[in-house]
Amino acid sequence: MPVHLTFNDIMVMGKIPRLNLINTIAGFKSANLIGTANVAGRTNLAVFSSVVHLGSKPPYLGFILRPTTVPRHTYQNIKDSKYYTINNITANIYEQAHHTSAKYNEQISEFDTCKLTPEYHQLPHAPYVAESTIKIGMEYVEEYHIKANDTILVVGKIIEIIYPDNLTAKDGKPDIEAAGTLTISGLDGYHTTQQIARLAYQRPKKLVNNKIAKT
Amino acid sequence: MPVHLTFNDIMVMGKIPRLNLINTIAGFKSANLIGTANVAGRTNLAVFSSVVHLGSKPPYLGFILRPTTVPRHTYQNIKDSKYYTINNITANIYEQAHHTSAKYNEQISEFDTCKLTPEYHQLPHAPYVAESTIKIGMEYVEEYHIKANDTILVVGKIIEIIYPDNLTAKDGKPDIEAAGTLTISGLDGYHTTQQIARLAYQRPKKLVNNKIAKT
Repeated sequence: MPVHLTFNDIMVMGKIPRLNLINTIAGFKSANLIGTANVAGRTNLAVFSSVVHLGSKPPYLGFILRPTTVPRHTYQNIKDSKYYTINNITANIYEQAHHTSAKYNEQISEFDTCKLTPEYHQLPHAPYVAESTIKIGMEYVEEYHIKANDTILVVGKIIEIIYPDNLTAKDGKPDIEAAGTLTISGLDGYHTTQQIARLAYQRPKKLVNNKIAKT
Repeated sequence: MPVHLTFNDIMVMGKIPRLNLINTIAGFKSANLIGTANVAGRTNLAVFSSVVHLGSKPPYLGFILRPTTVPRHTYQNIKDSKYYTINNITANIYEQAHHTSAKYNEQISEFDTCKLTPEYHQLPHAPYVAESTIKIGMEYVEEYHIKANDTILVVGKIIEIIYPDNLTAKDGKPDIEAAGTLTISGLDGYHTTQQIARLAYQRPKKLVNNKIAKT
């Protein structure tokens, strides 16, 4: 028999099993470090698994944060400087990346505590992770306060993208697997990937009387 | 030399390379089918790679949709019935899942055209995918219109979760890799995963004068 949990079952679970279940169940997540600094130049770095694609023209990405917990320094810095960076997490740095989730006070930069190297390109006050192979520079656009549970969707515009020049297929798709990008399950699982296929753009099959024609 | 693209470079790219680049660059994405029906029972199924964790207590998930393109039937049905399902995409069904992106008119159910089997549990008018190994029943809570690019964040509450009983570790984390869940890159890449580690909850290292103590 499969497990069948209802809303009420979930609400009365212990905190740790519930966090593990709900953070994991909806599938694999993007693995990124978000780099920020305040206008005085004090840097911050935090692991995020909630970066999501919003649109391609203009190029927009979103991410979710919970202002009342650890990543609040990220939020404060973005509000202060208006810029931030999104850097991929690879197998070479995932342990350091995960340690950014430890609760240091804001005087401390995770670049130091996690032994990752800040690197600057065009954006003022937005440190990239030198060890990352894919680096995306973002400008803050707007935010939405999600009333249901007091989280925030931050919407940003891509200002620059930096990645190795041997990664791009003829049709413009960068090979993020070859770049070493990991994917995250739940709060603590790091996974490599293996591509099984790229599928073609799909067009409707021929229908006869609203049924798929036999071929 | 790495590729270095600016916002202006991206804006003047051809449409297909830009779609491939921006949909891919921010990392791996969740691979799900969202099942819906209107109150008359006409079903719809669509592939989504934008499901994102919002919170665990109460359990909330979000996803992004673009009301002016294909998944509008999904949106109409959710507004109509208030319920929807999130079903994982495995290696057994990824080709059928991908075909849900073909533009059929709303008289046609992708369950038929993609040869996937609707299955019902507690939710009225919300078909699950029988072939999926992880099934999440959702109730619509609220939505946010993202002004920047006219997309919508749909916020839903988890009403039930159904998955195989041999998947859960002692700490409550379901093994979505063992469940066969794939991850998506860009618009068309399907990948299996291989876990390299589960890392412990991180606590700050001991600091001396705001530097990490040598051990």
